[in-house]
Amino acid sequence: MLTLPRVSWQHRHLLGLEDLSAAELTAVLDMAEHFTHDADPPRKKRNHLAGKVIVNLFFEPSTRTRMSFALAARRLGAEVLDFSPSGSSTSKGETFIDTAKNIEAMGIDLVVVRHSATGAPHLLSQHLKASVVNAGDGAHEHPTQGLLDIFTIRQTRRLEGLTVGLVGDIAHSRVARSNIHGLTKLGAKVIVCGPPTLVPARIAELGVEVSHDLDAILPRCDVINMLRIQFERQRSGLFPSITEYARLFGLNSERLKVARPDLLLLAPGPINRGVEITPEVADGPHSAILRQVTNGLAVRMAVLYLLCGQPEG
Amino acid sequence: MLTLPRVSWQHRHLLGLEDLSAAELTAVLDMAEHFTHDADPPRKKRNHLAGKVIVNLFFEPSTRTRMSFALAARRLGAEVLDFSPSGSSTSKGETFIDTAKNIEAMGIDLVVVRHSATGAPHLLSQHLKASVVNAGDGAHEHPTQGLLDIFTIRQTRRLEGLTVGLVGDIAHSRVARSNIHGLTKLGAKVIVCGPPTLVPARIAELGVEVSHDLDAILPRCDVINMLRIQFERQRSGLFPSITEYARLFGLNSERLKVARPDLLLLAPGPINRGVEITPEVADGPHSAILRQVTNGLAVRMAVLYLLCGQPEG
Amino acid sequence: MLTLPRVSWQHRHLLGLEDLSAAELTAVLDMAEHFTHDADPPRKKRNHLAGKVIVNLFFEPSTRTRMSFALAARRLGAEVLDFSPSGSSTSKGETFIDTAKNIEAMGIDLVVVRHSATGAPHLLSQHLKASVVNAGDGAHEHPTQGLLDIFTIRQTRRLEGLTVGLVGDIAHSRVARSNIHGLTKLGAKVIVCGPPTLVPARIAELGVEVSHDLDAILPRCDVINMLRIQFERQRSGLFPSITEYARLFGLNSERLKVARPDLLLLAPGPINRGVEITPEVADGPHSAILRQVTNGLAVRMAVLYLLCGQPEG
Repeated sequence: MLTLPRVSWQHRHLLGLEDLSAAELTAVLDMAEHFTHDADPPRKKRNHLAGKVIVNLFFEPSTRTRMSFALAARRLGAEVLDFSPSGSSTSKGETFIDTAKNIEAMGIDLVVVRHSATGAPHLLSQHLKASVVNAGDGAHEHPTQGLLDIFTIRQTRRLEGLTVGLVGDIAHSRVARSNIHGLTKLGAKVIVCGPPTLVPARIAELGVEVSHDLDAILPRCDVINMLRIQFERQRSGLFPSITEYARLFGLNSERLKVARPDLLLLAPGPINRGVEITPEVADGPHSAILRQVTNGLAVRMAVLYLLCGQPEG
Repeated sequence: MLTLPRVSWQHRHLLGLEDLSAAELTAVLDMAEHFTHDADPPRKKRNHLAGKVIVNLFFEPSTRTRMSFALAARRLGAEVLDFSPSGSSTSKGETFIDTAKNIEAMGIDLVVVRHSATGAPHLLSQHLKASVVNAGDGAHEHPTQGLLDIFTIRQTRRLEGLTVGLVGDIAHSRVARSNIHGLTKLGAKVIVCGPPTLVPARIAELGVEVSHDLDAILPRCDVINMLRIQFERQRSGLFPSITEYARLFGLNSERLKVARPDLLLLAPGPINRGVEITPEVADGPHSAILRQVTNGLAVRMAVLYLLCGQPEG
Repeated sequence: MLTLPRVSWQHRHLLGLEDLSAAELTAVLDMAEHFTHDADPPRKKRNHLAGKVIVNLFFEPSTRTRMSFALAARRLGAEVLDFSPSGSSTSKGETFIDTAKNIEAMGIDLVVVRHSATGAPHLLSQHLKASVVNAGDGAHEHPTQGLLDIFTIRQTRRLEGLTVGLVGDIAHSRVARSNIHGLTKLGAKVIVCGPPTLVPARIAELGVEVSHDLDAILPRCDVINMLRIQFERQRSGLFPSITEYARLFGLNSERLKVARPDLLLLAPGPINRGVEITPEVADGPHSAILRQVTNGLAVRMAVLYLLCGQPEG
């Protein structure tokens, strides 16, 4: 087995970046670095989680996050099972907690959960002996997405003193909240930017600057993270039209002219081409979009390893 | 490879507990004991089914049974594939048997099948060279559920002379039928109890006592197995209301006062909290509900091992 | 690791049999022979694809093809992930190419893709660094089905000079097109036969004979490949009725009387019993239908091995 450094880690669950200290955030990011090359061939096969069983408990549709966790778990030697609510006991009237406890009773070590209800992973963590990883709960947090965004920034920038713009639907974005908690703890300055209807007034209490004018903040940003407009989740009436939104808050070549030459562009995806980002920008030199996906694997390996693979003692 | 005792076993399929002798039932239960600790960490990785391929062929929705079989198979070193009828050839007009024979032709050793039609697994067993395990067919049998119920009882009780009450919708319950066959063969007395509309008249021919009054039989029972009311399967009109059903046949703290102090409570799940069982009883000291789930893994490992993992000779 | 012969192979993708030379077709078929026995117990476990990750990217429903690729990949030691479009990013507005590039960014080596749009695999191959295998694109090609049909013929016949009849819906059949390209390159004569509405006029340009009279060509055929009538895909009005179709183009015992005694019968499945083929013929001595399925595993192992498992140099 390949040796890994032993890091101090006290948590049994990863529910949100709000719960982690700067030192703990750094510990996860450092551990992820050890796994970075595992995504490239020749891949190392590790056995740190041999004999462990991990369940993907996704109550909301997902491709990349579910697959990323599955690959991360297998890369560490764990068994992975997928639970999808269609065709399941929940359709027979069973409660969310009972479903999870029954799955746990089969000998599961860690549950990765995505749920439309804020706090669902916290509820699970109170009822299970297994570890719980939040893979997105409502508009609350999506900690591994936050970690992989920060990891991607940290690959080429120093976080201390960096200015990061989060652009788009801040109100409904769990990715925004995880980024805000993680980035501010690690010393970066965060500016949230979107239409007034999509930026909650009290978000400033989290220590961020609030803007409604992308052109005004773009020249000050080292990094821009373009959140997706969640057509399927958004109640109508929060912005006048897609075209209007794209004109005011979309990133295109014209707008990029006022940005710093070394601007780093992130987007959690899936992106709506021509809405948040035009194709030539998404595929252009600033974009780290696909690198984020690759880094997601390393970050999730680090999280799984710290929660249930690190030897005791 | 960890050594296991060699037991006498002649069956190629497990279609129902009606087909097994008392000695054969005991052989499965004894084998399951060897696998009991495999559900707990540190888990043993076994290779008894290395190179074997098992298919979960579920024509009815299922979470726990499908996952339990998948985990049991992997714990023994087998490959597991899931077949789900949606997105499959059956939607293109292929017959049930042709679908199964085509899957078998890919080199499959054992098929775990759940189907709404009574006898579907028997039909398969006549057409396939692979082993067939019935994971529930209509209102007929669900032998591994029966085995795990009996296994859970046997962990703390002697079956000979024990009185077991099966409560609820006996008419539509494959779990009831498997319990009746298995328990009576092993020397237990079975009382079936439910509203007259949900207890078929001829069930007494299977050697069980019939009751329609839970309060009357509860004091005589060592074990109560609370079957679930299958809202989704039941034709309307078989009982007046959920509230009325819960009042007459639900298990609650008040009713438990007339039960034996050491009453063992089973429920095959998923349970409808507040209908068959109130939450404080489901989570109370009598309940073995989650232990049943854990035992299910060991029982299914035993079944898979006996059907296709035991060395010849 | 079991040693395999090194064959000359230049392709990174398998998009269609139209792209392969006779020598390359023979190389795949020869390699498949080495894997033939792997479908039967005792199965050899191979590690030629250890550390590789393969994704099944199926935008159309499939049972056998998806499972066959999954089993083939695992038999060679690869990890396999299933992507199904329901519950995925495509429902959130992501483009087909972005979905694939995101999956690839997780460290995927090979993508098996099925799509209703002709050319979708070619499009993918232009955008991905990973290998792409076409598992069926519109009415264009389904190369591994073509290979397994040809492999099954070659097990008992010499292809050079053989006469093969492709019967049914030629116009909408990707299986027909792959058979035509593969068989004609390997020296067989192909006769396509179906109602005029289901046989495109320009198909003769591919070097095949065209017929609309099964009884007329049957005595001349060494092999008959009965394509399925794709009820779900066909626009109405292309043939008068199922009964009429079965009478004119279905294979039954009566019609077989004019066939050669050693006629080999193939059908890509899933078959509509009583339409293309009557049950007694499908299960009769001429039929190689289930052997085709078994061979599919060996052929897909060969394809995966040649595309991403063969050592460099």
